[in-house]
Amino acid sequence: METWMRFLSNDDRIVFGKVEDGYLHEHLSLEHPVPTGAVLPVSALKALAPCAPRKVVALWNNFHALAAKLEKPVPAHPLFLIKPAESVIGAAEPILRPAHYAGKIAYEGELGIVIGKRCRDASVDEAAESIFGYTIVNDVTAAELLNENPHFPQWCRAKGFDTFCCIGPAIATDFDWRSARVVTTLDGVERQNYPLSDMVFTPAEQVSMISQDMTLEPGDVIACGTSLGVGSIKDGGSVSITIDGIGTLTNRLTAAGDTARQAVPAAASAV
Amino acid sequence: METWMRFLSNDDRIVFGKVEDGYLHEHLSLEHPVPTGAVLPVSALKALAPCAPRKVVALWNNFHALAAKLEKPVPAHPLFLIKPAESVIGAAEPILRPAHYAGKIAYEGELGIVIGKRCRDASVDEAAESIFGYTIVNDVTAAELLNENPHFPQWCRAKGFDTFCCIGPAIATDFDWRSARVVTTLDGVERQNYPLSDMVFTPAEQVSMISQDMTLEPGDVIACGTSLGVGSIKDGGSVSITIDGIGTLTNRLTAAGDTARQAVPAAASAV
Repeated sequence: METWMRFLSNDDRIVFGKVEDGYLHEHLSLEHPVPTGAVLPVSALKALAPCAPRKVVALWNNFHALAAKLEKPVPAHPLFLIKPAESVIGAAEPILRPAHYAGKIAYEGELGIVIGKRCRDASVDEAAESIFGYTIVNDVTAAELLNENPHFPQWCRAKGFDTFCCIGPAIATDFDWRSARVVTTLDGVERQNYPLSDMVFTPAEQVSMISQDMTLEPGDVIACGTSLGVGSIKDGGSVSITIDGIGTLTNRLTAAGDTARQAVPAAASAV
Repeated sequence: METWMRFLSNDDRIVFGKVEDGYLHEHLSLEHPVPTGAVLPVSALKALAPCAPRKVVALWNNFHALAAKLEKPVPAHPLFLIKPAESVIGAAEPILRPAHYAGKIAYEGELGIVIGKRCRDASVDEAAESIFGYTIVNDVTAAELLNENPHFPQWCRAKGFDTFCCIGPAIATDFDWRSARVVTTLDGVERQNYPLSDMVFTPAEQVSMISQDMTLEPGDVIACGTSLGVGSIKDGGSVSITIDGIGTLTNRLTAAGDTARQAVPAAASAV
């Protein structure tokens, strides 16, 4: 198993590569994972989300245990919403409470699939080949907005705020999801502990079926949905999600005004 | 009023600028509209969507006439879904029927707001300043997928397919939306003809309120929602949407296999 991460160097360059024994072995990109020859000590770098998705496709109702609790049938096709690129933050970055929202904010510990190759109308086998690796996602939700309007469930709004898609700390390749569990702690207390083998659609099935709905690009992330144990985070509270083999993703919820908003390097803008 | 367009040159370069009397006066970008000095005859260029949004925010229920017909109250905050960047095509490009979907495909003629400056938690005045200009959007929908699953309305899936967000042909600045109408024809027959003054949230209000939900980036598009007269397009059918002062956006629905999928230049990919 290999561990891939993405960092900001102290000369403000974004670097991506394989991490071994405290050193980053830089590679050109996730799409072109060719070594550049550069080797950098991780201690001198600031961790970012391990990829820069153009979009995050987030699933609802993809675990049998949660479907049973909600008394909903499992779906025939993945049910999803889109979280925008601007919602993505990395491990240890703060989740920021929206300035105009005082309600409950929920955590959801999830497995994340990271796409490695452009993928469109892919078979399950082709889809499996297009997966670069796996990461951890905290699919944060402004819970009270979801059904605020009785005529239109606001999935994209409730889950799309800046900083509401925590991804990290790393991407693991050759990861055996069938034997792994997602363990979420809130302020040190375990709240979620569920097996990934309970998923309705396997990762390759998700990628295949979603690639029939839209082209998936290198770096895009599919958040596989959550299971039992979702709850809300108090301001100042800290959520840690651990998947053995990938690592632990920790983020703290910060109320507006408690911290200056972090400056994030702008993505390349096209005309 | 100025007209801005984006093209592919015959040496495969993306060029953006102001169009006057059949010539493109190239500018650096939408975010930095500084003349490069180059002047190119439009006849030698292939038109693209006039901007390359990272995301398209598409509103539902933003016209009083449609709300009345649907017997829904007008909302207190814009209700929206996100269409991914991969769904965007320009004028004259084909809308492609998804390979695994044989159902109804609907057109929706809409005004599009094009963001010019990064915009977050903006007041209505700041929001007005962040608008670069206005374009036309055909917010295409795989209508039968929307409520296919009774437990989860699939807005992002039904409206997110590749080629399901037609944008163009141009961006008009200093456009007086209050006096303009959206006129949609299907195979030459008028189907929509509604005044933009009937909008629930004005463009600046939309940008302000949505900027409280997520950061809007230069080139992002808000599709302002549609009004009465939505209908479905037969394979081979052609939809033209005209807004005086912006132009006419025409796209034809093409069944799979009728045409090779157009190669679209990949956006810059970040690691």
